[in-house]
Amino acid sequence: VDKDLKKLIAAARGDIRADLVLRNARIVNVFTKEIEEGDVAICDGFIAGIGQYVGDMEIDLKGKIVCPGFIDGHIHIESSMISPSEFAKAVVPHGTTAVITDPHEIANVAGEEGISFMLDSSRDLPLDVFFMLPSCVPATPLDESGAILNSDQLGQFYNEERVLGLAELMNSYGTVRCDEEIIAKIKGAVDQDKRIDGHAPGLTGKDLNAYIAAGVMSDHECSTAEEAIEKLKRGQYIMIRQGTAARNLKALLPLFDDKYCGRCLLVTDDKHPGDLIYQGHIDHIITEAVTSGADPLNAIRMATINAATYFGLKDRGAVAPGYIADLIVISDLNDINVEKVFKNGTLVSEDGNLRTPIRSFERDEDKYRRVYHSFNLREITSEDFVIRETGSKKRVIKMIPGELLTEEIIVPNDKEGGVDIDNDIIKIAVIERHKNTGHIGVGFVTGYGLKKGAIASSVAHDSHNLIVAGTNDIDMALAANAVRENEGGLAIAADGKVLSTLSLPLGGLMCDKDVFFVEDALITMKRQARELGVTKGVDPFMTLAFTALPVIPKLRIITKGVVDVDTQSYAPVIFD
Amino acid sequence: VDKDLKKLIAAARGDIRADLVLRNARIVNVFTKEIEEGDVAICDGFIAGIGQYVGDMEIDLKGKIVCPGFIDGHIHIESSMISPSEFAKAVVPHGTTAVITDPHEIANVAGEEGISFMLDSSRDLPLDVFFMLPSCVPATPLDESGAILNSDQLGQFYNEERVLGLAELMNSYGTVRCDEEIIAKIKGAVDQDKRIDGHAPGLTGKDLNAYIAAGVMSDHECSTAEEAIEKLKRGQYIMIRQGTAARNLKALLPLFDDKYCGRCLLVTDDKHPGDLIYQGHIDHIITEAVTSGADPLNAIRMATINAATYFGLKDRGAVAPGYIADLIVISDLNDINVEKVFKNGTLVSEDGNLRTPIRSFERDEDKYRRVYHSFNLREITSEDFVIRETGSKKRVIKMIPGELLTEEIIVPNDKEGGVDIDNDIIKIAVIERHKNTGHIGVGFVTGYGLKKGAIASSVAHDSHNLIVAGTNDIDMALAANAVRENEGGLAIAADGKVLSTLSLPLGGLMCDKDVFFVEDALITMKRQARELGVTKGVDPFMTLAFTALPVIPKLRIITKGVVDVDTQSYAPVIFD
Repeated sequence: VDKDLKKLIAAARGDIRADLVLRNARIVNVFTKEIEEGDVAICDGFIAGIGQYVGDMEIDLKGKIVCPGFIDGHIHIESSMISPSEFAKAVVPHGTTAVITDPHEIANVAGEEGISFMLDSSRDLPLDVFFMLPSCVPATPLDESGAILNSDQLGQFYNEERVLGLAELMNSYGTVRCDEEIIAKIKGAVDQDKRIDGHAPGLTGKDLNAYIAAGVMSDHECSTAEEAIEKLKRGQYIMIRQGTAARNLKALLPLFDDKYCGRCLLVTDDKHPGDLIYQGHIDHIITEAVTSGADPLNAIRMATINAATYFGLKDRGAVAPGYIADLIVISDLNDINVEKVFKNGTLVSEDGNLRTPIRSFERDEDKYRRVYHSFNLREITSEDFVIRETGSKKRVIKMIPGELLTEEIIVPNDKEGGVDIDNDIIKIAVIERHKNTGHIGVGFVTGYGLKKGAIASSVAHDSHNLIVAGTNDIDMALAANAVRENEGGLAIAADGKVLSTLSLPLGGLMCDKDVFFVEDALITMKRQARELGVTKGVDPFMTLAFTALPVIPKLRIITKGVVDVDTQSYAPVIFD
Repeated sequence: VDKDLKKLIAAARGDIRADLVLRNARIVNVFTKEIEEGDVAICDGFIAGIGQYVGDMEIDLKGKIVCPGFIDGHIHIESSMISPSEFAKAVVPHGTTAVITDPHEIANVAGEEGISFMLDSSRDLPLDVFFMLPSCVPATPLDESGAILNSDQLGQFYNEERVLGLAELMNSYGTVRCDEEIIAKIKGAVDQDKRIDGHAPGLTGKDLNAYIAAGVMSDHECSTAEEAIEKLKRGQYIMIRQGTAARNLKALLPLFDDKYCGRCLLVTDDKHPGDLIYQGHIDHIITEAVTSGADPLNAIRMATINAATYFGLKDRGAVAPGYIADLIVISDLNDINVEKVFKNGTLVSEDGNLRTPIRSFERDEDKYRRVYHSFNLREITSEDFVIRETGSKKRVIKMIPGELLTEEIIVPNDKEGGVDIDNDIIKIAVIERHKNTGHIGVGFVTGYGLKKGAIASSVAHDSHNLIVAGTNDIDMALAANAVRENEGGLAIAADGKVLSTLSLPLGGLMCDKDVFFVEDALITMKRQARELGVTKGVDPFMTLAFTALPVIPKLRIITKGVVDVDTQSYAPVIFD
């Protein structure tokens, strides 16, 4: 939005009528933590003034509360399995008017093209989508991702106005040991006066000093208040994360105190479709925090002005003259129920219903070939899953309900083909799908619970190859090929038939349909997965997806085999 | 200072020894408003870490307090009548490690050359000098300044890293009425993502909304807490000003409360030589505030991290890893007495004594001809002060002790030549001195008190022409010519002799000697002025200097005559 300063000034003075006046509002003042009474005058998408105003259009709020639109300081949109435009449709009715996203997932699939796709497909929405550039693609050099992003490739994106910095620097180990490529990425961001977000669970003491001295200005991985306060004292902004996969709100409640809240933000990191629909977004975090005893105005400041301040977004996060008119209307600070959402001064949502058309991004197959056709993989056969090694022992990945951590167990290799359904040992495979290398890692998993059939997914962190777990090679091939034919997504097969699929054609990560369609499909498929035996407490898709991430202990599987995370080396599946 | 990231990280981890460790410190944490105990490790001029460290050099602070260096958010260095290097010598021992200056005075004399001179002569000091560009040169189109600065001329300075924005937008009247040139200057700053400082005493309600909507993000002219809180609520940062000319601290004490202090800064605006010597700088404001009941840690935050945050200076204002090691050591939070000052990690002052050489700026007459030779004026004769108009009445400017406001009085014109010493009516004249136009405005003044002789000054706000007040034309010419021969400064003449002069050869505003030399001269000259009769409560030089500023009511004198400020028109001195 380009400011017509003269018009805005005239409207602020009352020399001309405002476009819109929200009358009789109780206005959240994030600067003084107060509620003021008055009108909010809006002109050309900006707030002209607070006071008494006349407008071409007026809405009498009858004492309802006006508050700045919410900002999610850290989210991976891909985790919602919907495109940016569909994501906007899902979160705008909840009062979110800006997010800062890290397109880490699609960058692992499609590299620079993936980042460009997210930038382009997130324009002109009633949601401002800002970007932090993925700092760790691939997550580990061991893995076969679709792309590798070095500092030069990232650097070209800093010219884009919506790119605010370098996203979560997950490799804190490498950072404090001065890994050349990480230092180059940090310098690339600092030279452009951009921010660097952190990701360093448990980092403390001198290593924390070193990480911060390197320029890492935030953290969203704190799981205790003590950890968060140490980081805050050393200068980091703390992003209190409450999403689908990780939920740190309860542990971090002390940070809502006046003493700390000024340097805290609220973020979701990952938010799955069902949680977006049934819980909401930042509005839900605020309500959860307040229910747990947090000061609602502090929570609102974290979700508005603090995020804007941290990211250097000077004209948002407050209801004040000159600020972008991203505003929401609520009735109760203690139970946030967003009644109206104004984006750039336009009513875009009312009582949970969008009031503005959101057009889908126009497909451009030439420009985004790697996004729309991210599968580069021959047809899979059941032969691909045969394990030819021989030996007396079998190494098995053990899933644990409610955890992303896995364990390693060693069992006798006494079954033909290795699968032992009675003892819950089935096959798991990761098929390279970006470069048609033919690499397939095959291993065993326990704890998943599947008694019949196979489940496949192209969402498989962080490289997003094709992962499939199954009781037999035929169903595994069927499920894998179903995903392959859809050029991405999820599939369940059993008894030689494909039972269900969810197509995720955008990079194999996101659907091109809406969040309800995706959630309906997920509900159906999760029920089927349970019917096929998947253990309670194990998410049929999310837990499976993380089994491919060789940075979380103990045992993972990638395209070239099973990996011992502690040693970062391959471990034989069958051995003596 | 260019960061060697790898070295800093290694020092932070303790893998290499720090350059310097301040041991056993009590460290002011501006993020949490706490005092922590520990060591501060410094490497290459940056803070590496807080904790326990070993250094090549170690200083045991034995529990003394370490605090970030102070930042003055708004000062006109010219008002101290000394060059930037001499200014640094004066303020660094008081713990000031950065100032944001508005070279408004010298810009009125020498335009772009004046700004460049201040930029160049303030490099490589143990004080970081940042700039806001003077927004109102000349202060009013009526006046004859040495230069006019339009938006294009200002625009070229935004490339300079130390230029942070547009300085105090004094013309709030024109701003809220969309004056074209002001709007252009605002857009120039906003387009470069720079800040805009305000100056709008008493502005309130819709005009305030308009001024802020225009992008003006701060104010330093608040004289009541009510005024300050209104501006703060609307989004401005409040600069609490406590200098020589204006002192708002007492009135603004409520802003030191937790509720407001987060968006407040401490500034001096103008600080005369004697006040720098005898009071100090920001250290003095903090002590004054604390003595009046303010929370010392809040006061320190205002003087450090808040200023840094407002001006977007990301790596200063805190004792934290990665921050510039601008640090001071004190013993008592309630009575700030700066014992040690570290600039970029080097001890530059101890117990009030500089510990580092500060070189003077190398004279470059070709590059800064308009600064070093700012007088363009023929010799003055007593004839120049003769008033030839006839009439029965005389219009007289009335000075008021302790005020910058003047009044207008009309008296019978019944004395030969107009001067009436018995009734305290003497002559006052402003001589154009930039462009040799020959313009001389001559009028009368009462309340100054001079009984004998004449006093002249080339410091005459804001255009800094040559102002002279006297009881007779001969002494007036003598005093004026003494200033002219020095190419700027102050002079006192009586009984046909020059009694004293202070040479201010840098633009006619600043001395090239140190603050003690200037203050000694001022003390002598002020005593002489009193001996010649200057009224108690009237500053012989400051009050005189403001008599030339045609924006403060009621009557002023400029190069073309006496001005009625309310109507912005010339008023005849002798009339019927």
